[in-house]
Amino acid sequence: MIHDERPLAISAPEPRTLDLIFTAEARKQLHARYQIVEADPENIEGLGDDVLGKARYIIGQPPLSAETLARMPALRCVLNVESNLINNMPYEILFQRGIHVVTTGQVFAEPVAEIGLGFALSLARGIVDADVAFREGRELWGGEGNASARLIGGSEIGIIGFGDLGKALRRVFSGFRAKVRVFDPWLPRSILEENGVEAASLEEVVTRSDFVFVVAAVTSENKGLLGAEAFASMRPGAAFILLSRADVVDFDALISAVASGHIVAASDVYPQEPLPLDHPVRNLKGFIRSAHRAGALDSAFKKMGGMVLEDMDLMDRGLPPMRCKRAERETVSRMRSKGVKIN
Amino acid sequence: MIHDERPLAISAPEPRTLDLIFTAEARKQLHARYQIVEADPENIEGLGDDVLGKARYIIGQPPLSAETLARMPALRCVLNVESNLINNMPYEILFQRGIHVVTTGQVFAEPVAEIGLGFALSLARGIVDADVAFREGRELWGGEGNASARLIGGSEIGIIGFGDLGKALRRVFSGFRAKVRVFDPWLPRSILEENGVEAASLEEVVTRSDFVFVVAAVTSENKGLLGAEAFASMRPGAAFILLSRADVVDFDALISAVASGHIVAASDVYPQEPLPLDHPVRNLKGFIRSAHRAGALDSAFKKMGGMVLEDMDLMDRGLPPMRCKRAERETVSRMRSKGVKIN
Amino acid sequence: MIHDERPLAISAPEPRTLDLIFTAEARKQLHARYQIVEADPENIEGLGDDVLGKARYIIGQPPLSAETLARMPALRCVLNVESNLINNMPYEILFQRGIHVVTTGQVFAEPVAEIGLGFALSLARGIVDADVAFREGRELWGGEGNASARLIGGSEIGIIGFGDLGKALRRVFSGFRAKVRVFDPWLPRSILEENGVEAASLEEVVTRSDFVFVVAAVTSENKGLLGAEAFASMRPGAAFILLSRADVVDFDALISAVASGHIVAASDVYPQEPLPLDHPVRNLKGFIRSAHRAGALDSAFKKMGGMVLEDMDLMDRGLPPMRCKRAERETVSRMRSKGVKIN
Amino acid sequence: MIHDERPLAISAPEPRTLDLIFTAEARKQLHARYQIVEADPENIEGLGDDVLGKARYIIGQPPLSAETLARMPALRCVLNVESNLINNMPYEILFQRGIHVVTTGQVFAEPVAEIGLGFALSLARGIVDADVAFREGRELWGGEGNASARLIGGSEIGIIGFGDLGKALRRVFSGFRAKVRVFDPWLPRSILEENGVEAASLEEVVTRSDFVFVVAAVTSENKGLLGAEAFASMRPGAAFILLSRADVVDFDALISAVASGHIVAASDVYPQEPLPLDHPVRNLKGFIRSAHRAGALDSAFKKMGGMVLEDMDLMDRGLPPMRCKRAERETVSRMRSKGVKIN
Repeated sequence: MIHDERPLAISAPEPRTLDLIFTAEARKQLHARYQIVEADPENIEGLGDDVLGKARYIIGQPPLSAETLARMPALRCVLNVESNLINNMPYEILFQRGIHVVTTGQVFAEPVAEIGLGFALSLARGIVDADVAFREGRELWGGEGNASARLIGGSEIGIIGFGDLGKALRRVFSGFRAKVRVFDPWLPRSILEENGVEAASLEEVVTRSDFVFVVAAVTSENKGLLGAEAFASMRPGAAFILLSRADVVDFDALISAVASGHIVAASDVYPQEPLPLDHPVRNLKGFIRSAHRAGALDSAFKKMGGMVLEDMDLMDRGLPPMRCKRAERETVSRMRSKGVKIN
Repeated sequence: MIHDERPLAISAPEPRTLDLIFTAEARKQLHARYQIVEADPENIEGLGDDVLGKARYIIGQPPLSAETLARMPALRCVLNVESNLINNMPYEILFQRGIHVVTTGQVFAEPVAEIGLGFALSLARGIVDADVAFREGRELWGGEGNASARLIGGSEIGIIGFGDLGKALRRVFSGFRAKVRVFDPWLPRSILEENGVEAASLEEVVTRSDFVFVVAAVTSENKGLLGAEAFASMRPGAAFILLSRADVVDFDALISAVASGHIVAASDVYPQEPLPLDHPVRNLKGFIRSAHRAGALDSAFKKMGGMVLEDMDLMDRGLPPMRCKRAERETVSRMRSKGVKIN
Repeated sequence: MIHDERPLAISAPEPRTLDLIFTAEARKQLHARYQIVEADPENIEGLGDDVLGKARYIIGQPPLSAETLARMPALRCVLNVESNLINNMPYEILFQRGIHVVTTGQVFAEPVAEIGLGFALSLARGIVDADVAFREGRELWGGEGNASARLIGGSEIGIIGFGDLGKALRRVFSGFRAKVRVFDPWLPRSILEENGVEAASLEEVVTRSDFVFVVAAVTSENKGLLGAEAFASMRPGAAFILLSRADVVDFDALISAVASGHIVAASDVYPQEPLPLDHPVRNLKGFIRSAHRAGALDSAFKKMGGMVLEDMDLMDRGLPPMRCKRAERETVSRMRSKGVKIN
Repeated sequence: MIHDERPLAISAPEPRTLDLIFTAEARKQLHARYQIVEADPENIEGLGDDVLGKARYIIGQPPLSAETLARMPALRCVLNVESNLINNMPYEILFQRGIHVVTTGQVFAEPVAEIGLGFALSLARGIVDADVAFREGRELWGGEGNASARLIGGSEIGIIGFGDLGKALRRVFSGFRAKVRVFDPWLPRSILEENGVEAASLEEVVTRSDFVFVVAAVTSENKGLLGAEAFASMRPGAAFILLSRADVVDFDALISAVASGHIVAASDVYPQEPLPLDHPVRNLKGFIRSAHRAGALDSAFKKMGGMVLEDMDLMDRGLPPMRCKRAERETVSRMRSKGVKIN
């Protein structure tokens, strides 16, 4: 290997690709500043010690063993561009050595928040059903078509989970005069208050909202957090909008609650993806369906590369990464998301 | 007529009704504070001089002749609860006498702005079509379903008309990092800037926006303001959202522009309402249809009564009305909206 | 007089001058668009009928008699650049004829609001006294110097009067997490609420605030509105900040309340201006003095010309003025401010 | 020692005291939830192994040796309530073991930002000098007193350092229409942009601002960051406001720049504290002096206890601390502030 002054980064971003997550311009910067070694994510240990010994960064989230890590004395950061922390590397060793593990999932916050508000407005005003009726000549004109229409202005909003998604959601609601309550047991009350929301219990959020948004990641603790009882306790006609992971709710109970007419709902995620063609949610009235499309915009993926470059620049200057989100010793083992297979 | 200390108000709110525009509580206040004479709007002149002579307010927009007005020396304000100024009274006489003519159309600003944002998000993210496809088992999962998806964050928004509707629209966009340009020839540039928007020409708004909203009332000057040329000059894939009156655009040209795939669109208003069953817009791809439902929410109508009470209270205290919008000498004759027949 | 297509404007802005209220650039526009006739404000009637007959605008607030107005058939607007409405013209005739009377006092709102916040912060943190003590070697370091220091964040703010000044004040407070209550009997509650403040009684504003701002113009009704009893009812240590006109308060009572140590205060206005050298407020501890300087910034005066140009442009196009504030039939006679003599 | 189920916290908050940093209510909670062992900060190693072995938290920043830490297997967090990271414990060992070191300095952000804005307004409007002149009968009335007065609205603001202080400063400016540029080499550009400020070089911030705020902590790299050349490059009449540490500037050069009339300034910090009585800054015209009082409000200290309680609660539940600021491996050694002796 010819001597190269540039820091070395191993590239193993699968299922992403460098072309997906970098704009042409950012890609150019990446190669100008770093020696990039593209590697098979399933065989990082197969790289030579010249590469492993010099590697400062891994762009990706490939399986890593303790042995491989021991051969990487210069490693400073694993930049996970999948966004879920997968149980495929000894995080404890990384933490001990002060090697950062960061994720770029924040890029999905804005697109998810925007479609979440779109679902809320569509449910509140019957946008989907009114359009379908109009196509079929069954439309109702003026006030007659607004029997169940509601405003967001003046309503009460509940958000479950106040990570990047929750914060982005709060931001798109800032133009509405709405009261926002948040349930997030991982954040102290004062931080929620500083963000202009009211800290609330799960029960308050569920029972006192006109719109309930679920943006919490699945953890070992919140599987099936919301079931039949929770849905029954919601306000009649309230909207339930599921944006993070289906496992947080009892999906069958959600379907029943909507089928009964008690609430309306929208979801971007499902217990099985893709969903069987005969799944009852397909024909459910009062439900807006989206096929795990909330975050996966090309513009979102392209931001990942920018985040990676910004944080590598900070670390090159001896500073900690500030742009991506750092994995935490305490919570890494609680995160239970399966990795994605497709972008 | 028994002596009654309460100021007298003639009620002729058709096509509204007092029950539509007042909550039960507000209705009670109305009757407690005022002597209400319910009148046939087509026959105000048929009221006795005891009523006409004492009437301080007219709630409604009935036809009024110069002769009838001459019999109403105590009249201080006509509170139009229809929201359009109809050519059925001698406004010049009212202005000379210092009788206010005010409208309550502001109540529709918030509901129209909210559904407008809902249309924008639905078009940007394909919410309607994705749901219909999902019902039919044709949904595309993840990024595959987002080929034409766009964000509002980072986009450029154009608003045509910056009255109450335009301002409400600007407000619901305030949580998004979007650049907002406004064309409104009736407002000075500095007022637009104080509202945090950029004053722009019609051409700039049409050609440099990702989302164009039309919220201008029809005047004698802007009929057919936007035609084939304007639509052709829009950015490919941009969204055109029509919320005020169909006459502002060449509707056939709009349909062609959407049919060609150049732009997408949503509309709440049509050249004919109701629309014939065979109208081509019914099957138009890339178009979201709404049957003049944007403003007509019960909660909006109920606000009218509150506005009427607040302004009558100010006038009872010798102050000018501040809550409703005042008709202006200069523009009353330029407003060309037909009155509505249904609520 | 040579034929001139440009609309004619009579200039009589005293005590202002055109150079004070127009930037060089705006002045150039003024002369390019209008035929300007500079007139002696005390002798408008001395102008020939060629001028009076053609004059569309008066820039200024000169005395006008009914007879002079009768000679001005083309007059459309009196643009008062003093900002107070003086009792020197028959307003009723102007209103009947639909001639607008507008004022440009809004230009003072931003400078007054900024210094008002500056007074509040100076009082809250002892900025003036601490600097004076430091000059004299008597400063107290760290927490010892903060015995009476308070934050605006988390405090309660009361504003008396919610015209342009009050709104500007509310805006400069928007970065603080403070509760703002407003007393303004001329505005309906819902307008205050839409501006993000709580409508309150005078008593609530006085007794429940940490900072009370008086920005109400003097009217025939509010002279001496706040006296000894009001000051006694304020929270101990609260700050009273007087920004509009001294006549709204009993100034001696204010001095006593500060002298007793019950409250602190700042004022920009005084019962007599200039103030006698032996006036007790000069040595009053707990009081910040400003010599009617809050609004009179050159940059503020220069905005007047811009407002005048924008509104004349609207009126030239047959539209109503929107930039300046219009005098109202109902309130013109209630406004009791004396005109200013100096800028 | 009697068996106690409560987690054990060692209290050694000097120079703070528990009474300073906890409200009575918070103090009660502290003792209800934790077994508190008050210790001599200079002799933590003198505590018995029963205490050290069980201690989960240290409230304070006492000197700690590697040996002492080795006797503390249950230690999870050092909660520094001084706010500076002092070089008195082996941070590297703490990081390796995953023991958090957090600081509560954020409590000072709001008070410092508020007084910083107060300084800016006082300098812009001459509040201090005008009051002193008024006391002495030398006041200038109206526009005459505003020769050098400026607005913040429409101005350009520069902030050096965008930690908690910088963010709080940005927030109090959010009600003004001002352009804000920030220089902070530790933060990526996109984070600054997300906070609504423009990322800029130090030179841009210094040369293109009407108000420059220094809120950067002293590090090993920024000592004397701003000297004669920087001050000379500032806009004539611009204001320089020093809020963090005197060592960031060449203080003599600052005095010269103000003495020459080129700029005006305010400072809360000095090269020596207390400052000699004959120091030239005491009589410097165009300078506002504050004796290290910007942050040291009782209400700020009291927030420290709340932050400590919130983060201990999170850690008790196995979560990472989120309220206080964590020391970082990369930067702990770069922070060079001396500890404070007084509160």
